[in-house]
Amino acid sequence: MQVTMTITAVRSAVRQARQQGKTIGFVPTMGALHRGHLSLVEAAARQCDFIVVSIFVNPTQFGPSDDFNKYPRPIEQDLAICTEHGVDLVFAPSPQEMYGDEVLTWVDVERLTGPLCGSFRPGHFRGVTTVCAKLFNIVLPDVAFFGQKDAQQAVVIRRMVRDLNMPLEIVVCPTVREPDGLAMSSRNQYLTAEQRGQAGTICLALEHAEDQIRRGVRDADTVAAAVIGILRQVPGIEIQYVSLVDAESLQPVDPVSGKVLIAVAVRIGSTRLIDNIVVDAH
Amino acid sequence: MQVTMTITAVRSAVRQARQQGKTIGFVPTMGALHRGHLSLVEAAARQCDFIVVSIFVNPTQFGPSDDFNKYPRPIEQDLAICTEHGVDLVFAPSPQEMYGDEVLTWVDVERLTGPLCGSFRPGHFRGVTTVCAKLFNIVLPDVAFFGQKDAQQAVVIRRMVRDLNMPLEIVVCPTVREPDGLAMSSRNQYLTAEQRGQAGTICLALEHAEDQIRRGVRDADTVAAAVIGILRQVPGIEIQYVSLVDAESLQPVDPVSGKVLIAVAVRIGSTRLIDNIVVDAH
Repeated sequence: MQVTMTITAVRSAVRQARQQGKTIGFVPTMGALHRGHLSLVEAAARQCDFIVVSIFVNPTQFGPSDDFNKYPRPIEQDLAICTEHGVDLVFAPSPQEMYGDEVLTWVDVERLTGPLCGSFRPGHFRGVTTVCAKLFNIVLPDVAFFGQKDAQQAVVIRRMVRDLNMPLEIVVCPTVREPDGLAMSSRNQYLTAEQRGQAGTICLALEHAEDQIRRGVRDADTVAAAVIGILRQVPGIEIQYVSLVDAESLQPVDPVSGKVLIAVAVRIGSTRLIDNIVVDAH
Repeated sequence: MQVTMTITAVRSAVRQARQQGKTIGFVPTMGALHRGHLSLVEAAARQCDFIVVSIFVNPTQFGPSDDFNKYPRPIEQDLAICTEHGVDLVFAPSPQEMYGDEVLTWVDVERLTGPLCGSFRPGHFRGVTTVCAKLFNIVLPDVAFFGQKDAQQAVVIRRMVRDLNMPLEIVVCPTVREPDGLAMSSRNQYLTAEQRGQAGTICLALEHAEDQIRRGVRDADTVAAAVIGILRQVPGIEIQYVSLVDAESLQPVDPVSGKVLIAVAVRIGSTRLIDNIVVDAH
């Protein structure tokens, strides 16, 4: 496995792989790799010949009060995991390599970045779309893989790729969960043992919502209220949003119909956790 | 020469050219081709094997009071010119092919789009950068060619390409001028015979400014005032700006030093004309 911090080396390695007739699969990450990331690497390995993983804690997607400084960076462990899982190339650039002295150019997706996490993390998605545009232009993959856990991110990236005619396919892989249902996240390690015990409630609440819809409940507020009721059983939980939105347009749906994204963001202590489930309400 | 209105056909033709080992040169235009455009096609032919010209009057770079509807669209004549000059592929998409029903994603370059034309044409450069990002992703050229006549556009596009790590080179070619010095522009055809006679004054004013700097004048206001004085000899001229800025940062320079862009925008009647000259003030 090749590891590089430079854009030039990535371009050169990918060019060489492509000259050998290989297709390029790309998994952009912020490191602190868990089984969620690995499911993306495995999907990439099934679909592509040459697997590139980027590890970059992207400063432009963190707000001033976000956890940029404390975000975990276990680079040696991440590299070992990538080696074990047959990754061909890891790109782990410095912020300087990615952004130089100053960023003047931004890629912005309107409307889809407004609701859900967008209203709690101003500028977050602009940072995500900009860094993904850069990474796509550096790696030039045939396919890039994202997790459904970050549902809004996946919708926004898909739209960016479509709107800007970027020459790659976006594949979104299912959320990988702990045995109690907690969605895999690098931020789970911030949780105390007690908080970790409580965090499984998020998934339970989403499953309850899915169950309600399957049983025929179509009033969005009723479903949301039930989710909120379950989440409130966690002491000290702060609910940022519980939203039922169209899974593509991210606009509120009420009554519930079509493919509905039920998305939740909470804080448990100082840790922000998000999760979601998509239900087909036909 | 192949002519197509579809993105799919462009991708396929370019892929085929690339498989034959050809390098791809790209000249994005809004049509109404003149000798300025042809100098770009000729530069592309010198540097690249397969020449793509796009002809697209891009609605997103026109403001509500701009000349989008009346902008000339002599497509048959343009195609004849391209055929004569050895263009391999003309991409002439409809707005629907380029933008579908709705644009949500924009590429924005900060600061560089603020001064000069940016302050008179709000949203213009966002439209330019977005359509260029799209066209670059569709054509995937090795080199794209722009004219120095649109100096701010060239600086903005270069910066976008650099900031977003777009995998292509930008070449900026010298302004091509009429015998009396008027910079070639598709908008020159809006001018009445009388206005056309007067429009040569713009270039004379810029040459005077260059002359002043070469003779040692370093006070930017003195140079600008002289340019304004000459331009005002044109009856009914409306001067939008006469600016002396650093040729890369586009920030005002006073006293004049380094590579200085002297940029002018005026209206003669209802026709907006821009021109510029770069002077090395060492």
